[in-house]
Amino acid sequence: MKLVFLGTSAAQPTENRGLSCICLEREGEVLMFDAGEAAQISYMKSGLGWNKKMKIFVTHLHGDHCVGILGLLQTMSMQNRTESLEIFGPSGIEEFIAANIKVLNFGLSFPILINTIKDEKIFEDEKFLIRTCKANHSIIAFSYLFEEKDKPGRFNVEKAKELGIPEGELWNKLQNGNEITVNEKIIKPEQVLGERRPGKKIGISGDTMPTKELEEFFEECDYLVFDSTFLEAEKQKAQDTCHSTAKQAATVAKNAKVKNLVLTHFSARYRDEVEHLREAKEIHDSVITAKDLLEIEIK
Amino acid sequence: MKLVFLGTSAAQPTENRGLSCICLEREGEVLMFDAGEAAQISYMKSGLGWNKKMKIFVTHLHGDHCVGILGLLQTMSMQNRTESLEIFGPSGIEEFIAANIKVLNFGLSFPILINTIKDEKIFEDEKFLIRTCKANHSIIAFSYLFEEKDKPGRFNVEKAKELGIPEGELWNKLQNGNEITVNEKIIKPEQVLGERRPGKKIGISGDTMPTKELEEFFEECDYLVFDSTFLEAEKQKAQDTCHSTAKQAATVAKNAKVKNLVLTHFSARYRDEVEHLREAKEIHDSVITAKDLLEIEIK
Repeated sequence: MKLVFLGTSAAQPTENRGLSCICLEREGEVLMFDAGEAAQISYMKSGLGWNKKMKIFVTHLHGDHCVGILGLLQTMSMQNRTESLEIFGPSGIEEFIAANIKVLNFGLSFPILINTIKDEKIFEDEKFLIRTCKANHSIIAFSYLFEEKDKPGRFNVEKAKELGIPEGELWNKLQNGNEITVNEKIIKPEQVLGERRPGKKIGISGDTMPTKELEEFFEECDYLVFDSTFLEAEKQKAQDTCHSTAKQAATVAKNAKVKNLVLTHFSARYRDEVEHLREAKEIHDSVITAKDLLEIEIK
Repeated sequence: MKLVFLGTSAAQPTENRGLSCICLEREGEVLMFDAGEAAQISYMKSGLGWNKKMKIFVTHLHGDHCVGILGLLQTMSMQNRTESLEIFGPSGIEEFIAANIKVLNFGLSFPILINTIKDEKIFEDEKFLIRTCKANHSIIAFSYLFEEKDKPGRFNVEKAKELGIPEGELWNKLQNGNEITVNEKIIKPEQVLGERRPGKKIGISGDTMPTKELEEFFEECDYLVFDSTFLEAEKQKAQDTCHSTAKQAATVAKNAKVKNLVLTHFSARYRDEVEHLREAKEIHDSVITAKDLLEIEIK
């Protein structure tokens, strides 16, 4: 599983930063968080693939976080995508997509399913769930939490062979937590499985000011990607525009006992993010500053 | 006056080509023809400036020719543009802009005026006019013609001094084609002005198949920028998708007695445009293949 940063600039692109777009690739599926204008260009460069199983989660309806969906839809059609595409977002997301599909003569080659966020839990399958929490921005905005379900412990092949369990169906049953019987002997999963492996928790703040609710929402994330638009010197500007500073991002991460903090959504006024890193590291010891096309393996 | 190519790829961006966007900069005013997704990124790189007097002419409502308007509007607002912005385009252009402004919470810092193309002549002032002609594409599409008005001949300073004409107001009058009287002697403009300088004609085809009407429309252009999506080997594909080949573009240019042909809108299937140039040069002797950020001085 890896995080792939496709756009890390706030509001306007710069020479080397595109607009907000973060992908989480897991077992061949792509979960995209926001798609600012030109997301398709970074997506093409990332090599993630046009016909992957895919969901897009929009944090809020500012152009720099969702206009890129239009280009993605057109190019996916040009690439003859057949796989359906699910899009989640705040109220208005349906209107945005529908209005543009109508006017722009899209010839979509695949179905799209649009879900307006109503409840906290917006998606769940047997492997992970996605939850939302209200962010604190200038318009309705949501933060997202990806929560992987715990995985069974690693299968101990030697042990299984020692116990005389023939490879195949019986190994699967044990792997899925079921008892089996071999030569009239009951064998429990724990006899061949290691410790259950806790699922990973990854938070995506979107545009927001820091809030107590978000600290609770992102509790003990393995990775938290947080709005780091401004430095501390522009704290008032952050407040005025409903964004955060690097220091505020680090404070949220620390209070939430997050393992790794990734700073993103840098204002175009800054030439680099060296100061963001320095200010955040004063508070949290594991900080990464995102760059376009940065990939972080989730271990 | 110069042509600035900001996007030269057909339908999908490639690693080095953005989506359709061509600017004509003239005396501090920018005339933009189409604005595909990410036009603002090339526009930023071109240095043309966010607060210039500006008009955007959209050839047709396919996403790769107009979605970039949304990002331009947002970034121009971020850059505190105050100058108004005029947008021209086929029926539906108003709906496209209005729907997105409503849903995407734009805080526009300047007025925009949207004009749906109804007549052939869509703009005229004392310096130039813009005309349209129906193109032949898969949806309603227009080609554009920029026609500069003839300019008075160059002012001969020595001659004016010889004739004893004091610098200032009287020189202006002569420059603007009016007779004057100095020491009871009538002086005609032709006595101090060179030959009238014919205005430049620049054609922008947008997406189209070749047509006789377009050959007449682009008669004797100084520069013609024409759809060159395919090579001759893909002529059938060009027909099926209502585009042109490089050879067809050159044939239109030749029949229209165009001075310079610029090929653009290259399909992403081609790694470069060497063959487009070769095929077109078999027919027209002055051919340029556009690249992103190419600038052509109009002499």
